[in-house]
Amino acid sequence: MVSRSDSQTSSATSLVECVPNFSEGVRPDVMDAIQAAAAGVRGAAVLDRHADAVHNRMVLTIAGPPGPVAEAAFRATARAAQLIDLEAHRGEHPRIGATDVVPFVPLGTTSMQLCVELAVRVGRRIAAELDLPVYLYGEAASRPERRRLPDLRRGEYERLRSHLAVEPSLAPDFGPNRVGSAGATAVGARRPLVAYNVTLATGDLSIARAIARAIRESSGGLPAVQARGFRTADPKVMQVSMNLLDTSRTPMTLVFERVRQEAAQHGVEVLESELVGMAPAAALVDVARQALQFRRLDADAILETRLLEHALGALEPNSLA
Amino acid sequence: MVSRSDSQTSSATSLVECVPNFSEGVRPDVMDAIQAAAAGVRGAAVLDRHADAVHNRMVLTIAGPPGPVAEAAFRATARAAQLIDLEAHRGEHPRIGATDVVPFVPLGTTSMQLCVELAVRVGRRIAAELDLPVYLYGEAASRPERRRLPDLRRGEYERLRSHLAVEPSLAPDFGPNRVGSAGATAVGARRPLVAYNVTLATGDLSIARAIARAIRESSGGLPAVQARGFRTADPKVMQVSMNLLDTSRTPMTLVFERVRQEAAQHGVEVLESELVGMAPAAALVDVARQALQFRRLDADAILETRLLEHALGALEPNSLA
Repeated sequence: MVSRSDSQTSSATSLVECVPNFSEGVRPDVMDAIQAAAAGVRGAAVLDRHADAVHNRMVLTIAGPPGPVAEAAFRATARAAQLIDLEAHRGEHPRIGATDVVPFVPLGTTSMQLCVELAVRVGRRIAAELDLPVYLYGEAASRPERRRLPDLRRGEYERLRSHLAVEPSLAPDFGPNRVGSAGATAVGARRPLVAYNVTLATGDLSIARAIARAIRESSGGLPAVQARGFRTADPKVMQVSMNLLDTSRTPMTLVFERVRQEAAQHGVEVLESELVGMAPAAALVDVARQALQFRRLDADAILETRLLEHALGALEPNSLA
Repeated sequence: MVSRSDSQTSSATSLVECVPNFSEGVRPDVMDAIQAAAAGVRGAAVLDRHADAVHNRMVLTIAGPPGPVAEAAFRATARAAQLIDLEAHRGEHPRIGATDVVPFVPLGTTSMQLCVELAVRVGRRIAAELDLPVYLYGEAASRPERRRLPDLRRGEYERLRSHLAVEPSLAPDFGPNRVGSAGATAVGARRPLVAYNVTLATGDLSIARAIARAIRESSGGLPAVQARGFRTADPKVMQVSMNLLDTSRTPMTLVFERVRQEAAQHGVEVLESELVGMAPAAALVDVARQALQFRRLDADAILETRLLEHALGALEPNSLA
């Protein structure tokens, strides 16, 4: 893969990630069927599946060239609409639909613009072929108040069911002014994100929520951090569940330290960290850089990352280091 | 790269790394010429070059399928033999030849046996075509006392010059019983290694050496750690330079902590960490795992690593996670 002849041409090296979230984290047959729908698309690699029974939610990580990844996301969304009934769905995590959110993420040298275009294309198709309301969000948002998922999801599916037909501010970007049992779907584009949880040795949900409030950007905390407090399967363990939207601005190490400090103020110990899905190499290398006092250490220090760049032909093969 | 049709067949996925060390870390034209000799081989990717003027040494990281990587290693060795005169070479780092050591390292699912065979083949060729004494080492060693490089390099080039012809224990595995100005070369196979330095805020070389003694396996320290004390370009900064032969046994975090503790006992502060070349993802992810108290975190948590596996076809594309 690393030779000049084997390397991809530049047009073939556009690589995107899609991390759709589905409102099913319990029934294995339903999760398998949704995953299989995505995995059936040639050229789209399903790299990871993360399910959480308490959130009643599954996250797939799909990567590959834009066309196949868009197709895989669409097919999984179609399958989820057949198999998931929001009327029967209960879970800790807020959601508006069977396929709750479909983010496209540029990898390597791929542009954000390409992901915005993909989001619009896939969003239009979901509305047209599945008859679902679609909201564009993130970099693909059609208006500022729809950029952030927490704003978009306020009141969740239940609010859309009662208000979508009558409340003009809820009008979707594509699709009908009503929801069925598959709810609505947010489709968007964003930078790579680290979905990161820290568990706490407490059975008091209000402490997890207070810590989340203290560290999230929207209530004056750390930049590019979204956080919520959640229960876990263990009643004696609560969780601060975070989206780190830009670990180059707010590194994981800082987030962990702040959660630990806030927890200590409540007399609570931090138990452990957990990733939901995968993290870009840069985020984890940055943790290692700080922990071992590297002056300079980036993702290119990882052998596999460098090889991937060669394998993808993103760099000229045999270029000087 | 991630589709079934684009993925490599299993015979094409054997991937090896070669990390040859050359006794030149000062003259850019010589370093460029050696690097260019390796980079000129189609299919071999020169991923990294690390040069150190004080060590007077350059390390290339080459990766790709076995054939091209072996060819690149041979060509670089041939070029170094033309351009480097050991009689004129001075440096902090011990060495026996212009091309001092040529290790082959299995990547991904490649077997150690393949790398041993590569080492024997390339070693034979260096002896036959370049008329250099070649010692097999590491997993390719022909006798136990040649497994470890520090043993093989004892007395360095100068000892070989004076004793090779008369001392039977110095007889090379391949090639002549004499050295010319290009010295001898150790060719071998080993597991992935992390070349890792920690700098110290002291001008006292004996402290760096004492710390190295305290932490290296050969004097009763940490398993799978080789260490030496060195000067740096800054007379007020000394360095503990290490090879971590198995970070799954002795993680980087532990090594750093032990160096810090030992330094503290001498009243010396640790300045920073430095990688020589690259590290496998597993070694750095392990640092992040410990720093942020992840219960479970391995190289597969890195998006790029997972993508590489798909790109290399090492996994069945679209397999369930």
